[in-house]
Amino acid sequence: MSGEAAFITALQNMALHSAARGLADDCAVLEVGGETLVLTHDMMVEGVHWLAGQDPADVAWKLVATNLSDLAAKGAEPIGVLLGYTLGESDARFVEGLAAALAHFGVPLLGGDTVCTPGPQTLGLTALGRARQRPVPSRSGARSGNSVWITGPVGAAMLGFEALQSGSGADSEAYRRPTPRLAEGRALAPLVTAMMDVSDGLLLDCTRMAEASQVTFSLDPACIPLPRGLPPERTHDAMRWGDDYELLFTLPAGQTPPCTATEIGEVRPRGAHPILLGETPPAGPLGYEHG
Amino acid sequence: MSGEAAFITALQNMALHSAARGLADDCAVLEVGGETLVLTHDMMVEGVHWLAGQDPADVAWKLVATNLSDLAAKGAEPIGVLLGYTLGESDARFVEGLAAALAHFGVPLLGGDTVCTPGPQTLGLTALGRARQRPVPSRSGARSGNSVWITGPVGAAMLGFEALQSGSGADSEAYRRPTPRLAEGRALAPLVTAMMDVSDGLLLDCTRMAEASQVTFSLDPACIPLPRGLPPERTHDAMRWGDDYELLFTLPAGQTPPCTATEIGEVRPRGAHPILLGETPPAGPLGYEHG
Repeated sequence: MSGEAAFITALQNMALHSAARGLADDCAVLEVGGETLVLTHDMMVEGVHWLAGQDPADVAWKLVATNLSDLAAKGAEPIGVLLGYTLGESDARFVEGLAAALAHFGVPLLGGDTVCTPGPQTLGLTALGRARQRPVPSRSGARSGNSVWITGPVGAAMLGFEALQSGSGADSEAYRRPTPRLAEGRALAPLVTAMMDVSDGLLLDCTRMAEASQVTFSLDPACIPLPRGLPPERTHDAMRWGDDYELLFTLPAGQTPPCTATEIGEVRPRGAHPILLGETPPAGPLGYEHG
Repeated sequence: MSGEAAFITALQNMALHSAARGLADDCAVLEVGGETLVLTHDMMVEGVHWLAGQDPADVAWKLVATNLSDLAAKGAEPIGVLLGYTLGESDARFVEGLAAALAHFGVPLLGGDTVCTPGPQTLGLTALGRARQRPVPSRSGARSGNSVWITGPVGAAMLGFEALQSGSGADSEAYRRPTPRLAEGRALAPLVTAMMDVSDGLLLDCTRMAEASQVTFSLDPACIPLPRGLPPERTHDAMRWGDDYELLFTLPAGQTPPCTATEIGEVRPRGAHPILLGETPPAGPLGYEHG
């Protein structure tokens, strides 16, 4: 059992069931004063979630983008963020990236905390949003007969990461500065039966959605959108790499999404495996397992 | 300039003024759907905010308590918390302390994130509360002629820390498991002209409140409440140690607080020094400076 799974089991054993669900399911949904608030908190650690030596401005951008992506998957409009920041050597550069991301997405920084650390930089961000659609989309609503869709390619962040790591000079923006699909999420929220962002790999996140919905996803490998320039032999990896932050969603059969998206499969009654590539369960690890 | 001050200056230079205020002033206040929300995010780092080897259950308690203390200072009722947690070796024990604190204060864990780290454990908690009083008390409302009060002694956490560090076996609970003054904060909020929790030392936090209010506090050293058993020669230290989480507040002259509290001084027009002990500015460092 991974550290994360053990921690969630411990929470469940202490009767903190709703929190265990929240920690596993990314967002908390809360009714306050006639509004439905969506709250999420994501952490990033130097050397784990970003390469040591990476531009702190990109790290700041990604911290904001990944949290806003969780709001996007709920069709929520961002209200603001709180920052937990361990002071480092390039704080001014971090602030530049933070300011750029907040301005780009039109989100205010509401507050937070700064601390010193003797170890690697560790960042936390809490994002707060206002749901525009009730009930808020979840990952558990996919039904047999639905179609499975994704808003964009998987694997672009993988290529970007490899470009950055190798110093090849190839484009690494998809890895460094992902785009949360906020407008798409708001447009899709009234229509989808289930929705989540793909942060840990398409196959792993499809598995999570299929398991939460108690169904089986049959994906058509030939339909999965891939980035330009991806060598054909990397398709296997692209389906397992995370960090692209596209939205994965299911629609009733015949329904067309109101934004750019690709149909990648269909939902079947629950079978022996949560996901199939065509008729075959995928081999090997499915994606990035936390902890 | 400390790291925290430099970071806040960088935020200000990037036109993130409200965030800089939020990071310096602990809480964000937000109108949502006819409610006034109060949000705070505090971080704690192993070896910086707690002793390596300390009971993780106490660490969890303190993480919850310090954040709820920020809500207490705003007279807010807690709604819930989100946890940012780096997995460690004693996660089950941490969860026990977390569950105990949340049950004790009647606050749900709404969600959060868990990550791995190669470095010291780094924890973040976001607490969300509902203001019961508008405007929400701030630290900038103290006026000349007001009286200065505190809800309890300063220095108990210092003695507790020293007991824990020395292994003397003396009572260390005040350091390990502080109590946020939630009920007192709610009772005081409609009456106070300014309020904050004392987290970084009485003299430093008085200075911050006096500067935010553009006044001078004259404190009477003989009136400052101290814990039982404090050696007289430690009074100087007790006024500079933090972690007690009592509420510091100002009231119009003649007003009596509706909870246990001690009058410790008076507010004067702004003079050459933000705080005086009697008629003399205090010597040396005033408290715990972040970063």
